[in-house]
Amino acid sequence: MAQVTTGKEIVILKDESVTLPKGFKAGGLHCGLKRKKLDLGYIASAVPATAAGVYTTNVFQAAPLVVTQESLAKENKIQAIVVNSANANACTGEQGLKDAYEMQSQFAAELGVKDHLVAVTSTGVIGELLPMDKINTGIKQLLHKDNEGVNNFLQAILTTDLMVKQIGVQMNIDGKTVSIGGAAKGSGMIHPNMATMLGFVTTDANIAYTDLSSALKDITNETFNMITVDGDTSTNDMVVVMANGLAGNGQLTKDHPDWEVFYAGLKTVCEALAKKIARDGEGATKLIEVKVAGAFSQQAARAVGKAIISSNLVKTAIYGTDANWGRIVTAIGYSGVPIDPNSIKVSIGAYPVFENGLPTPFDEAKLKQYLEQENVQIVVELNQGDVSATAWGCDLTYDYVKINASYRT
Amino acid sequence: MAQVTTGKEIVILKDESVTLPKGFKAGGLHCGLKRKKLDLGYIASAVPATAAGVYTTNVFQAAPLVVTQESLAKENKIQAIVVNSANANACTGEQGLKDAYEMQSQFAAELGVKDHLVAVTSTGVIGELLPMDKINTGIKQLLHKDNEGVNNFLQAILTTDLMVKQIGVQMNIDGKTVSIGGAAKGSGMIHPNMATMLGFVTTDANIAYTDLSSALKDITNETFNMITVDGDTSTNDMVVVMANGLAGNGQLTKDHPDWEVFYAGLKTVCEALAKKIARDGEGATKLIEVKVAGAFSQQAARAVGKAIISSNLVKTAIYGTDANWGRIVTAIGYSGVPIDPNSIKVSIGAYPVFENGLPTPFDEAKLKQYLEQENVQIVVELNQGDVSATAWGCDLTYDYVKINASYRT
Repeated sequence: MAQVTTGKEIVILKDESVTLPKGFKAGGLHCGLKRKKLDLGYIASAVPATAAGVYTTNVFQAAPLVVTQESLAKENKIQAIVVNSANANACTGEQGLKDAYEMQSQFAAELGVKDHLVAVTSTGVIGELLPMDKINTGIKQLLHKDNEGVNNFLQAILTTDLMVKQIGVQMNIDGKTVSIGGAAKGSGMIHPNMATMLGFVTTDANIAYTDLSSALKDITNETFNMITVDGDTSTNDMVVVMANGLAGNGQLTKDHPDWEVFYAGLKTVCEALAKKIARDGEGATKLIEVKVAGAFSQQAARAVGKAIISSNLVKTAIYGTDANWGRIVTAIGYSGVPIDPNSIKVSIGAYPVFENGLPTPFDEAKLKQYLEQENVQIVVELNQGDVSATAWGCDLTYDYVKINASYRT
Repeated sequence: MAQVTTGKEIVILKDESVTLPKGFKAGGLHCGLKRKKLDLGYIASAVPATAAGVYTTNVFQAAPLVVTQESLAKENKIQAIVVNSANANACTGEQGLKDAYEMQSQFAAELGVKDHLVAVTSTGVIGELLPMDKINTGIKQLLHKDNEGVNNFLQAILTTDLMVKQIGVQMNIDGKTVSIGGAAKGSGMIHPNMATMLGFVTTDANIAYTDLSSALKDITNETFNMITVDGDTSTNDMVVVMANGLAGNGQLTKDHPDWEVFYAGLKTVCEALAKKIARDGEGATKLIEVKVAGAFSQQAARAVGKAIISSNLVKTAIYGTDANWGRIVTAIGYSGVPIDPNSIKVSIGAYPVFENGLPTPFDEAKLKQYLEQENVQIVVELNQGDVSATAWGCDLTYDYVKINASYRT
């Protein structure tokens, strides 16, 4: 349970996911894209849901993202999402686009809804056409009762992920229980030809589109966009939120007295999923959190955090449980943010390691012990202003090289 | 031997270095910073040499860089460079700055020249004060005949480098033989707490300061600034060129008929050193060259080249001899350059792998064989304009992780 500043409670339910909110169901099956595991899944709402999305900035945007963006734009609503793993339908040209539309209309027919109310997402190998016979056969069985269940969905969206990634939260708005559920996949910003990070968020909140959309953008910048595994931005990255209004609260907008608690709830879901993706980074053994405080702007705080979390040298040092503060200071120095070396302070966990332009003496043994834990924190105080940011990532290990040097062959 | 467009020959002498040009000597000795190996070196010219430098953009610039920049600015001339390895004199505060000045004046006294005619450089561990007793004792013996010899110098500048890095070229200007020699160290843009990349270039050309300086800047952008090992920009990076005029040619400026041949010679030296640094990257088994053509600007061509050469996923794929074109295309897509996915062409060596927005069928076995070679080339045609750039780097291997996870502890 986490308290928020409004005094309202946000209850965190670790084993819940996208079916926690009222009126959502999900499922998945094996249609033959993977050898044995589930590879086709869906989320569906009982009624059309206000929906917003954020999409990769990679210019090689995959076909399903093009279709989903275009469809969402029609009414700012969707009623369902269909997703396959093992094939990203990226770099597949005109035929790939046709296939994504077909996937959409096939699932829309099963649900009995208009095509544009179905979002399509794909994740997996780049540059191969979808085997549409398998997809179509799978879609025909997808809504069958035997395939229903959120665990089927959570399995169906994975590629080389080691863990499923889910979270649920509940809060009280207008005297009604409002729920938000989330699921994600991703184990590298891009996988070995495996595209990518997908995030699915559902809520039964009644909420205005514009406010949902801007909240998702802002929160994505603070959560999903602050993680890195290897610095590579994939062709298929996408986060979609669906709000079906079945909680029965008065419509949420930025002016609603409970806006803050909803925003905090949505952020809790996105941050939890983002951290799970970072921790499940390819070959990772640790989750690294970089907290930057005292920046003069949000951009500056984020740039410093991202420089540190993206540094291969910092990542390998933490894998080696080495309190190598010189690499952290160096990353701050090339982050592009104007900084006075003499006014910053750097700590690893609770141990200051650099202050007033000079190294701070520290107990190497104790710090090594700290670095042996699974969660490692780096704290930077810039002393330039009062803006903060947090970034998350993972260590760089032999297994990262192994996974990525040997994946395709 | 390489032909340049002027029709003038540039003779490449692979085993020559900074003492190839007339009037330069060099040497080195062991003063006790390393356990056994040489750790203190110098280059000296018989007469003051027109000198220009380029320096790291890291805001945590090390003390010797501050001293060197300030000294060069006085007359645009230096007569000698003194360099130590094993200690970077970086993040060392006021005392570090005092030590760098002392190192300068001690060696200036030995040479009998003014302080500001001596450049100071250091490379090695960050955050430790120089043991000035050892440095001063060493400097007193540095000019002794027993310590003279360019090989001593080449050894004395190394940290964890596996190979010495040297090159010499000669060309004819105004009927005189003009020589340029180069030496470098560096095995990561920053080493495990090991700062850095240093480049030393000497020439006996008679050349105007402004033209030498701008040529060095332009060439550095095309060579040293186009290599990456791990994307980390160190606190000590520096390249210095000294031109003592002893070749006796008429003063070179941009208007001299042989300017182009001199420029090509200087570029040959810098490019050769840059490639040697990339190939000697930590844990590297291969040199990767990325050629980008058809860009609409220099900046765009370089951004695409650097995105590819910096991608951990591309680097691991090449280590694994995997023709993973999807990772190359993805890196192009997030380089920040507006690109039409349907108009680019990507080749690995002579094998096209992506064209017209779709993968090109290729012979996996042949391409794998190509990737097993020590030198691997990636060629990108953007079809947007006529500007080209080349970037160099190395593969990402188990040994990179090993070296960097276990260095300090």
